[in-house]
Amino acid sequence: MLEQLKQQVLEANLALPRHGLVTFTWGNVSAIDRQQGLMVIKPSGMSYETMQRDDMVVVALGSGEVIEGSKRPSSDTATHRALYLAWPEIGGVVHTHSRHATIWAQAGKDLPAWGTTHADDFYGGIPCTRRMRDDEIVDGYEWQTGQVIIETLRQRGIDPLSVPAILVNAHGPFTWGRSAEEAVQSAVVLEEVAYMGIFSQHLTPGLPAINQALLDKHHQRKHGKNAWYGQN
Amino acid sequence: MLEQLKQQVLEANLALPRHGLVTFTWGNVSAIDRQQGLMVIKPSGMSYETMQRDDMVVVALGSGEVIEGSKRPSSDTATHRALYLAWPEIGGVVHTHSRHATIWAQAGKDLPAWGTTHADDFYGGIPCTRRMRDDEIVDGYEWQTGQVIIETLRQRGIDPLSVPAILVNAHGPFTWGRSAEEAVQSAVVLEEVAYMGIFSQHLTPGLPAINQALLDKHHQRKHGKNAWYGQN
Amino acid sequence: MLEQLKQQVLEANLALPRHGLVTFTWGNVSAIDRQQGLMVIKPSGMSYETMQRDDMVVVALGSGEVIEGSKRPSSDTATHRALYLAWPEIGGVVHTHSRHATIWAQAGKDLPAWGTTHADDFYGGIPCTRRMRDDEIVDGYEWQTGQVIIETLRQRGIDPLSVPAILVNAHGPFTWGRSAEEAVQSAVVLEEVAYMGIFSQHLTPGLPAINQALLDKHHQRKHGKNAWYGQN
Amino acid sequence: MLEQLKQQVLEANLALPRHGLVTFTWGNVSAIDRQQGLMVIKPSGMSYETMQRDDMVVVALGSGEVIEGSKRPSSDTATHRALYLAWPEIGGVVHTHSRHATIWAQAGKDLPAWGTTHADDFYGGIPCTRRMRDDEIVDGYEWQTGQVIIETLRQRGIDPLSVPAILVNAHGPFTWGRSAEEAVQSAVVLEEVAYMGIFSQHLTPGLPAINQALLDKHHQRKHGKNAWYGQN
Repeated sequence: MLEQLKQQVLEANLALPRHGLVTFTWGNVSAIDRQQGLMVIKPSGMSYETMQRDDMVVVALGSGEVIEGSKRPSSDTATHRALYLAWPEIGGVVHTHSRHATIWAQAGKDLPAWGTTHADDFYGGIPCTRRMRDDEIVDGYEWQTGQVIIETLRQRGIDPLSVPAILVNAHGPFTWGRSAEEAVQSAVVLEEVAYMGIFSQHLTPGLPAINQALLDKHHQRKHGKNAWYGQN
Repeated sequence: MLEQLKQQVLEANLALPRHGLVTFTWGNVSAIDRQQGLMVIKPSGMSYETMQRDDMVVVALGSGEVIEGSKRPSSDTATHRALYLAWPEIGGVVHTHSRHATIWAQAGKDLPAWGTTHADDFYGGIPCTRRMRDDEIVDGYEWQTGQVIIETLRQRGIDPLSVPAILVNAHGPFTWGRSAEEAVQSAVVLEEVAYMGIFSQHLTPGLPAINQALLDKHHQRKHGKNAWYGQN
Repeated sequence: MLEQLKQQVLEANLALPRHGLVTFTWGNVSAIDRQQGLMVIKPSGMSYETMQRDDMVVVALGSGEVIEGSKRPSSDTATHRALYLAWPEIGGVVHTHSRHATIWAQAGKDLPAWGTTHADDFYGGIPCTRRMRDDEIVDGYEWQTGQVIIETLRQRGIDPLSVPAILVNAHGPFTWGRSAEEAVQSAVVLEEVAYMGIFSQHLTPGLPAINQALLDKHHQRKHGKNAWYGQN
Repeated sequence: MLEQLKQQVLEANLALPRHGLVTFTWGNVSAIDRQQGLMVIKPSGMSYETMQRDDMVVVALGSGEVIEGSKRPSSDTATHRALYLAWPEIGGVVHTHSRHATIWAQAGKDLPAWGTTHADDFYGGIPCTRRMRDDEIVDGYEWQTGQVIIETLRQRGIDPLSVPAILVNAHGPFTWGRSAEEAVQSAVVLEEVAYMGIFSQHLTPGLPAINQALLDKHHQRKHGKNAWYGQN
């Protein structure tokens, strides 16, 4: 059942340690089969070294019930579900505690678009959510984490596929995309620009974001209808 | 004698260079057999590349005497003994000079709980000891290092298994756990949050610690009675 | 056609990930055959792992037309062409988003010559261009990027082979040399001094550049007529 | 001739890239045979990957003349000679541009003893030389570099084997020891404490050096007559 999607989710999960984004068993990737209303996600707390395709867990999007798999799904499953339910256009979600994105999340700061590296993948700054309220933490915490992410994008008028990343305050980044592979790419680029942002701002305190024209140009170069980057 | 514990201590020691926590022969891990009152510890100044199970040294908890082994035990043995004697609930101890934890120790600063990465393994900030007095340094230095660690936790009312780490002022970190393996995990996570803390505070000077509710939630998720992280 | 030059360009491109200068498919190297008026450049968005000599694309220097190759050339091709057309003495060009050079570019700051590591390869500070104007971004962006680089060196009276590197504001570094290999070396050294510069200035705010005499000495040692470094 | 010393010098040179202290062909190690008045040093600008024992160059301590070897000796040979001539107790010298030691050198700042990691190998702060004068740079630069190092230790009353390292202003570190191997160890530890020092001071501006008693204790533990670290 969903063997191909499981394989994609496995490979996307294995890409996290290869890109230096995770320690131990931290981090998780999921992908969704919209037609069947099923998502596939990494098992909770399982070592990346021994993980196999059939360890991936199939979860019903609507109910959150485990449909297939002998392992318990990632403890962040409810956050993934919330995002898939809110945004029909996304197909994959990634969560990590990658060092520099987490630094911005812990600092509670938005990461502005300070260069073309950022603009190539994110059409504007990466928002940081508000701190979660005690009642959101105590009850249904993972689901509420998803709701705070959704609220943040809605309040800022951000389209999820234009800026496929967020910093959850005092926690860490979530990224997404049309597929698990795209979500991983966003996680890698976010970590890269998060690193560069710390020191760009250190060299030039109060550094303004890049020109709108430059943001437009670089984003369209890779992501617009007439994208002219790559071989496709 | 104690072959299984020696093997665990060997493997825990070898995990230190694998996680990038040590240079040369720095660092040491021990574990204890409470029934026999014996601890097993890395030999002093020995290369991680050539270390074998039977190089591990067996030391009497009470007297500090070497019971078995042809090598001299770690020069930090008396610190390990002090911790085992003070805290019957711990089973393993780790000492490293890992870069970022040592930076906080050198700076003489507590490391606050600034995110969920921290809360997952430490139920509150990591304390830094006071500077040691000259008399404590001159006579019985390693034993006194242990006493200052114990004093710090007692004065702050910290339970050793809730916050299984400390920063020894002007020196570096010690971590512990129910086993050598747990103590190593704490050493890795401490290094991770020590790194992130430096730059989180740089981005947001005066950054407050995370909500108590978030600290509770994440710690219980991995460590409470009803923990729901992982496969057990 | 141009098999030897293609091989050199392939090898120079492969040196970028080996030196830790690129993520994914970022970065590109080209070289030129001045007699034939042809340049060879990396294909756009292609993985470094699978890249072969015959994937390199041959482009006419004058027209920018693809002369040979089944792949689309790097999206930065027009920038490379502009530099080759302006500076007959150069034979290779490199573009990366290497972390620390990009940090200076994003910060919009020149990188002063703060040590002999810098002086060995760059005879003076690395300039940062002005921000590009909207009209330059909207129309002929990559070509205009080249023009802003050329303008910056001309206005500062810098000889391209004396300081074979620039920081494009809000974007990243370009480097060059008599060959692709030399251009790669400059990219590596630039990244190294960019890293060191961030923290040198942090330790000593307002740090002045090195003595002219020291700049002269180190540059001549490796690059002057009577260079006495190395075996040639 | 001097085959054993050449082998030691080769191995000490190869340890530099293994410890991440050098880029390209940067860095050099030498050792001396005091009885014969001959030193063995790395050839200038030669790749670490292809270097063999017989590429090491034998140089007369007194005259600086090449006695054996088909390669040109390191361009820093005269600095090494100056140190051997001034300090009969040393047997090996290392020069690198390792990132964090070079940052302190570029910043023109002494590196205080801020922790026991430092005290284990250096009995006090690492001095930074004054900037070299133009006349010292123009004529006999490498020899004068050695003289400025010697002057700095003499003026501060530092014994070379107690603090076997220096930061040459606007340049980088030199380290030494009773052997090439010891000098390499000092280069590695210097880089480590240079890194930690940058951020220790960032967390606690104006951070004081460690207690004299702690400096004494840790230095004696590894280096005193009654050293109790290691297996010897």
